[in-house]
Amino acid sequence: MFSFIPKRNTQRVFLDYAATTPMSRRTLRAMRPYLSDMFANPSSLHKEGVAAREAIEQARKKVGAVLTVKARDVYFTGGGTESVNLAMLGTVRAARNNPSFVGTPHVLISSIEHAAVHATAAALEKEGVAVSVVPVFETGVIDIDALVRELRPETVFAAVMYVNNEVGTVQPLRDIAQAIHSYKKEQGRDVNAYPYFYTDASQAPNYLSVQIEKLGVDLMTLDGSKIYGPKGVGILYVKPHVAIETIAHGGKQESGLRAGTENVPGIVGFAEALQEAHELRDKESIRMTELSEYFFTSLKAHIPSIIRNGTHKMQLPNIVNVCIPGLHAEFAVLQLDARGVACTSTTACKSNDETGESYVVRALGREDCAASSLRFSLGRNTTKKDIEIAVSRIAETLTNSSQKAS
Amino acid sequence: MFSFIPKRNTQRVFLDYAATTPMSRRTLRAMRPYLSDMFANPSSLHKEGVAAREAIEQARKKVGAVLTVKARDVYFTGGGTESVNLAMLGTVRAARNNPSFVGTPHVLISSIEHAAVHATAAALEKEGVAVSVVPVFETGVIDIDALVRELRPETVFAAVMYVNNEVGTVQPLRDIAQAIHSYKKEQGRDVNAYPYFYTDASQAPNYLSVQIEKLGVDLMTLDGSKIYGPKGVGILYVKPHVAIETIAHGGKQESGLRAGTENVPGIVGFAEALQEAHELRDKESIRMTELSEYFFTSLKAHIPSIIRNGTHKMQLPNIVNVCIPGLHAEFAVLQLDARGVACTSTTACKSNDETGESYVVRALGREDCAASSLRFSLGRNTTKKDIEIAVSRIAETLTNSSQKAS
Repeated sequence: MFSFIPKRNTQRVFLDYAATTPMSRRTLRAMRPYLSDMFANPSSLHKEGVAAREAIEQARKKVGAVLTVKARDVYFTGGGTESVNLAMLGTVRAARNNPSFVGTPHVLISSIEHAAVHATAAALEKEGVAVSVVPVFETGVIDIDALVRELRPETVFAAVMYVNNEVGTVQPLRDIAQAIHSYKKEQGRDVNAYPYFYTDASQAPNYLSVQIEKLGVDLMTLDGSKIYGPKGVGILYVKPHVAIETIAHGGKQESGLRAGTENVPGIVGFAEALQEAHELRDKESIRMTELSEYFFTSLKAHIPSIIRNGTHKMQLPNIVNVCIPGLHAEFAVLQLDARGVACTSTTACKSNDETGESYVVRALGREDCAASSLRFSLGRNTTKKDIEIAVSRIAETLTNSSQKAS
Repeated sequence: MFSFIPKRNTQRVFLDYAATTPMSRRTLRAMRPYLSDMFANPSSLHKEGVAAREAIEQARKKVGAVLTVKARDVYFTGGGTESVNLAMLGTVRAARNNPSFVGTPHVLISSIEHAAVHATAAALEKEGVAVSVVPVFETGVIDIDALVRELRPETVFAAVMYVNNEVGTVQPLRDIAQAIHSYKKEQGRDVNAYPYFYTDASQAPNYLSVQIEKLGVDLMTLDGSKIYGPKGVGILYVKPHVAIETIAHGGKQESGLRAGTENVPGIVGFAEALQEAHELRDKESIRMTELSEYFFTSLKAHIPSIIRNGTHKMQLPNIVNVCIPGLHAEFAVLQLDARGVACTSTTACKSNDETGESYVVRALGREDCAASSLRFSLGRNTTKKDIEIAVSRIAETLTNSSQKAS
């Protein structure tokens, strides 16, 4: 009877899956028994404790299988940031406590690392550690020659993230690993000696292989909250030869590297989520590539001045980071939010910053785009319909002259 | 037809709730919406992010209300051990970075602190911090005079746990706080100056009030995994005047004191669990006191040589720690486990130790009991029937001569 009244589409379109993901049903199902029934402390000697311990070791095996490494080299932590801190502070601490380590420890990070890596590097610098920041090209890809030039005999590690969380650039980890290996060879060093190669791969597992041998890294961080797993749990992969010390003190959990009663449901959930991401990876990568291509092409049809940040070739398929010259990005995020589209200007992890500008986009050499870029990140729940709705709302909002007047 | 065949009771009796608790239904129900639907990153500017931020602030208020403090003084962390590390390392770090702090920092802990406190104190000592360990009486209660004698102008904090996790002794925190305040007064120091008074209250909220003003502490740790809440989440309460620095680096979450994407469901669950513990406290305390009295009396009827460790007057009602002279406690735990009773000799957190002996019981001055003590800890699900079954199995197992022959 009232079918002639057009129904206003009030459905929200969430395009901020790179900030964090919902927990998958499969993950929750795997965790469920460990929340209330099999809840014991894995350090207890009784049957219930042993069952909890076995759940952790099964989870460790599952993670090891996806990484194609020995389970014992996988350490569960309280999340991505903790893993980053453990990798960076823990290896430097071990170097400092090694009587045969000569000189001032030095570390090297790329200019577009996550805030956690930048902040930890700053803390190390305050403690007297030498820190080098290696630039990236406009594509977002690291300058490997510049990285190699910065390596020194005292370099403890080089940290290059697998995928940048803002722009989505995928780094050529294998090439970087080979360059570091060549440096070690020239220096007459063992392949297992310093400098180590560390990667924060938090954004990777949904779309890229995280097989350690293929990547050539010595340490790797993953985070449950980015892979449709539980929040507050992550891992640090540590190659056997790596010298690393704990950064928090207590019980002997995780071979003494991470103290504290283990979060058994979180650990079980993390492993399940990683396994699920691994299984869905190929299919989702293809789907995301198609959706994001369609998304950007459609946006460009409405906003011809729009530019896609980063390189097209080495790009995580679910991240579309665009520059619209003249746009006040932070204001645009709020406008789009009011119209039912959730996206971001800088990353969530830096959004308490004073500037509201993207240091990553700036690092690409695009000063003009630093305050005019938006990140849209698609996820498992994103449909073509979502993208169509988003495009129409974005076009309406951002081609409206009031936006630029702000 | 077969009713004359006695049915063997195979029901297990879990008496290790002090090691960790199952998550309550109410807690899980509170967390549920934040696992998969309201999953956004609280640092995001969009509506979904704002909703997540509001959930955290509501949780903070709820915790503040139970502690009767301002919400802003409650900091969410990744669990009890992290909170302990943050309190101890963070205050010492701030003291060291304070140009007006004169001399070598000094800290003071009781001899029966949790493994996390002991390990963190050892780490501080390795860094050049002076550490004093204050003894307890045979009752498990700290020697306040000895504590006061150890206070120095350079003392950053005194750490005394609210309730000992092995023996269950409740410390007279208010008296200790007053003694520390008197010391400050004598020294002509402000009430807000060093030394701070820190307590690990992880075992307390189910049975005791955790109102900060009543306790007189400056910093307090709580842990979700001990209060029928989620694992991998805890809090640190920090009084406004306390100088403290972060120990892990990254985003500006938790006012810069604890970096990392917030575990929103965990935080919501923690607050709900604390609220629930608060509501059930009086009723459960009475029930537990009755059950544990009945338990010990029944055990004593079967095993006359049994002694209850700790003081009867200042005792958490759910912990029954007993010494059976001559018992090989670690073996007994395994025997009882085989008979369907889950308990522990030393705490789970120390069970990877070489000795298998209890440093807490030893600290009570009961050398003879250190390897002959068992901890039974009751919980919300424990019934009188459970206790009856447990007593009969324990009596059968431990009065059997084969045990002592081992």
